[in-house]
Amino acid sequence: MGKLSVIGLGPGGVSGMTRQAFEALQGCELVVGYPVYLDLIREDFPEKEYFSTPMKQEIERCRKAVEEALAGKQVALLCSGDAGVYGMAGPVLELSEEYPPVEIEVISGVTAACAGAAVLGGALMHDFAVISLSDLLTPWDLIEKRLSLAAQGDFCIALYNPSSRKRKDHLKRACDILLRTREPETVCGIVRQIGREEQEKRILPLKDLRDTEVDMFTTVFIGNSQTKQVGEWMVTPRGYHLGKG
Amino acid sequence: MGKLSVIGLGPGGVSGMTRQAFEALQGCELVVGYPVYLDLIREDFPEKEYFSTPMKQEIERCRKAVEEALAGKQVALLCSGDAGVYGMAGPVLELSEEYPPVEIEVISGVTAACAGAAVLGGALMHDFAVISLSDLLTPWDLIEKRLSLAAQGDFCIALYNPSSRKRKDHLKRACDILLRTREPETVCGIVRQIGREEQEKRILPLKDLRDTEVDMFTTVFIGNSQTKQVGEWMVTPRGYHLGKG
Repeated sequence: MGKLSVIGLGPGGVSGMTRQAFEALQGCELVVGYPVYLDLIREDFPEKEYFSTPMKQEIERCRKAVEEALAGKQVALLCSGDAGVYGMAGPVLELSEEYPPVEIEVISGVTAACAGAAVLGGALMHDFAVISLSDLLTPWDLIEKRLSLAAQGDFCIALYNPSSRKRKDHLKRACDILLRTREPETVCGIVRQIGREEQEKRILPLKDLRDTEVDMFTTVFIGNSQTKQVGEWMVTPRGYHLGKG
Repeated sequence: MGKLSVIGLGPGGVSGMTRQAFEALQGCELVVGYPVYLDLIREDFPEKEYFSTPMKQEIERCRKAVEEALAGKQVALLCSGDAGVYGMAGPVLELSEEYPPVEIEVISGVTAACAGAAVLGGALMHDFAVISLSDLLTPWDLIEKRLSLAAQGDFCIALYNPSSRKRKDHLKRACDILLRTREPETVCGIVRQIGREEQEKRILPLKDLRDTEVDMFTTVFIGNSQTKQVGEWMVTPRGYHLGKG
């Protein structure tokens, strides 16, 4: 009997994976995923069979994974970050209803909100919201509404997909919404290529973030009203008394 | 020169850690943390020196970690889940300002929101908010405000610290706030002892969650208006068209 493991790769390559995810990859025969993610593990697992489809063909990928598991294979469906945060865990479970029963497990990984917050120091230490600025699958109105409510609630915010080729102004529009409620000096951070060799980070106030161009490999962090810069770090205090007494 | 690695253990024990976190533990001499978390790794790292303080003495723990690193030791400060989500990354970076410069790195782990969502299937697939119901360090008014705004925004919500010995009614009060905006049939989930042997999960509507007793080892998930139960799974759709055509 086959089995389908939906695996979050975490940030970067194999060193960011959990041991559980690594062992699931070791035990599988076929790895299915977006080409870029497959390339991150190919060297460590040269003997596997690989199957990929280009961007926007996620559902074909999910179907292939389910069908091969049903045919008896041990299959890994690989996602970047966490499979349950804008990943493939949901679609594959929804799809699986159309097929005969098949064993599925979801193995989580470190999502960019957590990995990027660590690069910045402690960007999200308190209550936070995760919002994608991609309007491919979500109406822009709903994205705006969520930005506005998260700002009103003084949540720390992690923004996924802050830019795309077609809509370069998403981050600027998001910042304008946040600036209705939040101070222009709110401490923000951007992290690019988290966990990879090209990793870069920058801490800057919200008013400057508005006019900063970012690419699709960037995760953006908005601090809450208490967030501060400590040396090179972005830190959101949680309310501990730090005094010795 | 010593170094301080602030490490997120992920859910459960060593198998939920990232390889990077595991290697940082291997390379350290002293492991500092809350006793329960130290016990999760002691067997895999029997040769280390350990230092712990009881609950509510987190800051003493952080000071010890910084001071030992300054004295030249390789120190690991261990947190459950992710060190940057209600963990020690923030406090230790804030504290470090009082001391001479010391090398610090933060290594993220899988936080309970992601690990629990995976146990449930795909509970958080869309925009989500993470809110702690603990009012030890946060005024209850602010927690209520955030619950209300997250509900209005139709965010998926992960609730940390849903119960404590002193305030058993936090979850009920939170549900009452959510029920002002969200349907009583909203699909919710609870996961207990994520990643450990005693792991348990349950899917239930918001109106039943209100009257459910949970303990401090539980993470609670509130779906958005689209979240559904698919077989044994809790799944929030992201908007993909699943059809073959």
